[in-house]
Amino acid sequence: MRHTAVLLISCPDQKGLVAAIADFLLRHNANILHADQHQDAELKLFLMRVEWELADFSLDLAEFAAAFGPIAARFGMTWRVAESSRKQRLAVFVSKFDHCLADLLYRYQSGELHCELPIILSNHEDTRWLAEAYRVPYQHLTVHKDAKHEAELTQLGILRDRKIDFIVLARYMQVLSPDFIRHFPSRIINIHHSFLPAFHGAKPYHRAFERGVKLIGATAHYVTETLDDGPIIEQDVARISHRDALDDLVKKGADLEKVVLSRAVKWHLDNRVLVYANKTVVFD
Amino acid sequence: MRHTAVLLISCPDQKGLVAAIADFLLRHNANILHADQHQDAELKLFLMRVEWELADFSLDLAEFAAAFGPIAARFGMTWRVAESSRKQRLAVFVSKFDHCLADLLYRYQSGELHCELPIILSNHEDTRWLAEAYRVPYQHLTVHKDAKHEAELTQLGILRDRKIDFIVLARYMQVLSPDFIRHFPSRIINIHHSFLPAFHGAKPYHRAFERGVKLIGATAHYVTETLDDGPIIEQDVARISHRDALDDLVKKGADLEKVVLSRAVKWHLDNRVLVYANKTVVFD
Amino acid sequence: MRHTAVLLISCPDQKGLVAAIADFLLRHNANILHADQHQDAELKLFLMRVEWELADFSLDLAEFAAAFGPIAARFGMTWRVAESSRKQRLAVFVSKFDHCLADLLYRYQSGELHCELPIILSNHEDTRWLAEAYRVPYQHLTVHKDAKHEAELTQLGILRDRKIDFIVLARYMQVLSPDFIRHFPSRIINIHHSFLPAFHGAKPYHRAFERGVKLIGATAHYVTETLDDGPIIEQDVARISHRDALDDLVKKGADLEKVVLSRAVKWHLDNRVLVYANKTVVFD
Amino acid sequence: MRHTAVLLISCPDQKGLVAAIADFLLRHNANILHADQHQDAELKLFLMRVEWELADFSLDLAEFAAAFGPIAARFGMTWRVAESSRKQRLAVFVSKFDHCLADLLYRYQSGELHCELPIILSNHEDTRWLAEAYRVPYQHLTVHKDAKHEAELTQLGILRDRKIDFIVLARYMQVLSPDFIRHFPSRIINIHHSFLPAFHGAKPYHRAFERGVKLIGATAHYVTETLDDGPIIEQDVARISHRDALDDLVKKGADLEKVVLSRAVKWHLDNRVLVYANKTVVFD
Repeated sequence: MRHTAVLLISCPDQKGLVAAIADFLLRHNANILHADQHQDAELKLFLMRVEWELADFSLDLAEFAAAFGPIAARFGMTWRVAESSRKQRLAVFVSKFDHCLADLLYRYQSGELHCELPIILSNHEDTRWLAEAYRVPYQHLTVHKDAKHEAELTQLGILRDRKIDFIVLARYMQVLSPDFIRHFPSRIINIHHSFLPAFHGAKPYHRAFERGVKLIGATAHYVTETLDDGPIIEQDVARISHRDALDDLVKKGADLEKVVLSRAVKWHLDNRVLVYANKTVVFD
Repeated sequence: MRHTAVLLISCPDQKGLVAAIADFLLRHNANILHADQHQDAELKLFLMRVEWELADFSLDLAEFAAAFGPIAARFGMTWRVAESSRKQRLAVFVSKFDHCLADLLYRYQSGELHCELPIILSNHEDTRWLAEAYRVPYQHLTVHKDAKHEAELTQLGILRDRKIDFIVLARYMQVLSPDFIRHFPSRIINIHHSFLPAFHGAKPYHRAFERGVKLIGATAHYVTETLDDGPIIEQDVARISHRDALDDLVKKGADLEKVVLSRAVKWHLDNRVLVYANKTVVFD
Repeated sequence: MRHTAVLLISCPDQKGLVAAIADFLLRHNANILHADQHQDAELKLFLMRVEWELADFSLDLAEFAAAFGPIAARFGMTWRVAESSRKQRLAVFVSKFDHCLADLLYRYQSGELHCELPIILSNHEDTRWLAEAYRVPYQHLTVHKDAKHEAELTQLGILRDRKIDFIVLARYMQVLSPDFIRHFPSRIINIHHSFLPAFHGAKPYHRAFERGVKLIGATAHYVTETLDDGPIIEQDVARISHRDALDDLVKKGADLEKVVLSRAVKWHLDNRVLVYANKTVVFD
Repeated sequence: MRHTAVLLISCPDQKGLVAAIADFLLRHNANILHADQHQDAELKLFLMRVEWELADFSLDLAEFAAAFGPIAARFGMTWRVAESSRKQRLAVFVSKFDHCLADLLYRYQSGELHCELPIILSNHEDTRWLAEAYRVPYQHLTVHKDAKHEAELTQLGILRDRKIDFIVLARYMQVLSPDFIRHFPSRIINIHHSFLPAFHGAKPYHRAFERGVKLIGATAHYVTETLDDGPIIEQDVARISHRDALDDLVKKGADLEKVVLSRAVKWHLDNRVLVYANKTVVFD
């Protein structure tokens, strides 16, 4: 794996942006590996992702903010820079369904997901065996109906202790409070088992079955305060027919959920996702 | 094209059904080409499609009802029989968007859609040139906002005169009244430019764009009294990205609409679609 | 899970077949759950799958052959009957790549694959940890280049001891001899990492990358004496672009391989696959 | 439609490229609408597409070469600039199958394909009616087996007279000579009715049917001297099953061919396609 840095930028579109960024990187001897930009014509926004090798780069990343600050200020940029060799620290929340967890664990172990996984948090014991098979710490935390707030405080404490960067809800069956979510803006990924906005909320496979749709879907999105309404990162669908009973939808859907969620997590880890206007740009 | 008959059956599931039907066909020397059946376990329904050659069949189809009646009565069947060589008579309703119409006309002319097309009805003049290129009668009928009922009466008169069996709404931008729909139960196919039930109603591409979905869809369904709520015959999706402006969604969607609608129409013409419980079985 | 029997039939197409089978099942009080048939018009073949509940069935399956024999003889049928509650016994062969194995093990453990898994055989030690995590017996058997025959004899002995019904090659990197294959006709499933017949043989991702294809594929097929030429059970593809390096193809392909192989294995276990003319019918 | 220019560049990858290009465009007051670049890590190539508005651009495009020349020379660029408002001039070659032609004509007429279409050339009379319906000139030119060279000379004359920029082979059933092809390097697009490299050459649907594949495909590619071996622009697939006879493959394939070909033509017209190493980059 190459030692690279990624710069993500969003700002009002204006002339000279690309030239200023390219010139800045050139002055510090950056060898650009990928650069991708997007203009939202309607909102007049400029969004960019640049990745370059750090080997020859003449600027220490610790000094990046100071050096890049004037340019960012001139163009009114929102930006962040990430070092690809630094592994983000992920916490997985899970309930009883274990297919997404098993998939994430395998991808984590194989190195496909370039991250640390210091903790799996669950409101059940059911999936502990998987965590143990992959030697990942697992903590069971009962969430009582009338003590959700206390449970969230405990969870937040654990996340702080473990220095967690972002959270994946791998079919976690509890709704998080706005308070909790505010601690991780655009840093909680949920997998919803429908093609959003169709069948948001509870029991999407049941409702898909009743409606007689010919395709089922899955959606990975960032969690916001409104249920199932956050910026969509990835979606996919699978064909079903009248021969598929509800149980078949659940099984076919499980395969969808796994690939959709894992793509979203991977893109997040690769710093490919920019959020704006409750949408995402996924740089490829 | 082979000269065949198709029998479509739905009834409560019970023992002896298949044997009774197979025995009936055998006694009349039917050479079965395709047979497909489906049991809905939840509703305890039996649904079947059988197609056989008429060459050796010893029963005149005109006498089929009399001969098959006792079996149908015994098992409480809803059934219909169709002669494949008899072409159904189709009317297409269209407004200004012409992509679905152009597609249907080409498939009609090439023989892919095995039907008669005695009339295209439109509330605009825009697509007349297409009808003329394919030598299909075209009638322009202005639909005034406050004279919808009168317009529908005129339309119904035309459909009666032309002996129309079923209707395709090829991006027809008027809502039909329940009265009108009752004349063609499960015999009006609409193409909706979204992945239903997402974005039912007006301007689905706009809303898909705003929601930031990663796939757009199209849905062909039978028209019922509730808007965009009828039994779904076919759906498909196409991938989009942040690079696609609203206009790109409309263009990519147009290609989806064409194939989804034409598949639904073809299956309807082949007597492959059975409606039950506001769903469809599409025998393949 | 319901206690059912599945009957698979292939024979020359002829009148009276369905009636004879339906009548036979009715006489023994079978409650048919699914029935699906296919006529190959070109080869004039009839192929059928029937599944019925055993609860009310008046015939002991041990006596099925004797009772059904006369009908089978009359129509020249090739047939087999399977009891769905009897779990087939699977052996998985694997080398170093572990993604397909991990996927199969998870599906086995979750009950999605209704089978026994008494042995994993590998020419390497690399994947033992996975077998152990899922508590499945694992045997390492070095295959020397110039002692393949001996290795196969050992393998066959193990398979016999373990009463293995069928084999899955989960990215097993050794070519099996015709002798070996003859022991398991239409009972060895291989996953090939290309869209066959494109890129059969070695290094398909490399060749796909060099050719500049826009989609990559995976194919599950029964193993025959000709490499990568056996009856195809399932295929699927994934979109790639110029941005995907060879390594990305390998990763995207791994996800394809998993779903394609697992579908094929599931269909095989459900007795849905009939082989004829080096093709498969997959009853759905 | 905005009045824009597109610059396409390929050259050895090196530092300072992006900065030099961005600076050049900024100096001439370009308002960049889209910019996309790709680095081929293996071949160490840099490929780029930039599109900017001409409204404010201070340089006349006629003087672009002179102004940009020094930069191009410094970095060893192969490049071309195109004015989006200038419509390329397309010739369509067709034989008897008319589905791709009908599709292209509709898209041309609707403005989706931004080009001129001064001539359709055919070795048959069958599709003349379509050309006439869309009021496009049509010329019938018999191609005798032993006078192919003469026919090609006549064709080349017509293409020269009509000032043709590029050619689409819309299921044209004649193989073009290397001599002919050299007149239009990377400017002849062919649609092949298989998932290349599978089933290159004659009768791909027949061979797909015989092989028992579960998906069929279509491929749009630039024509080179080796049959069906040119750089692939786009591919797609459709699912088939044992129920599909050869005739169904042909029909399902026709729908694939239409969308795959039209996408390739549209991308070519939008100057999105760069050819290198017998592959394409399609900037999106």
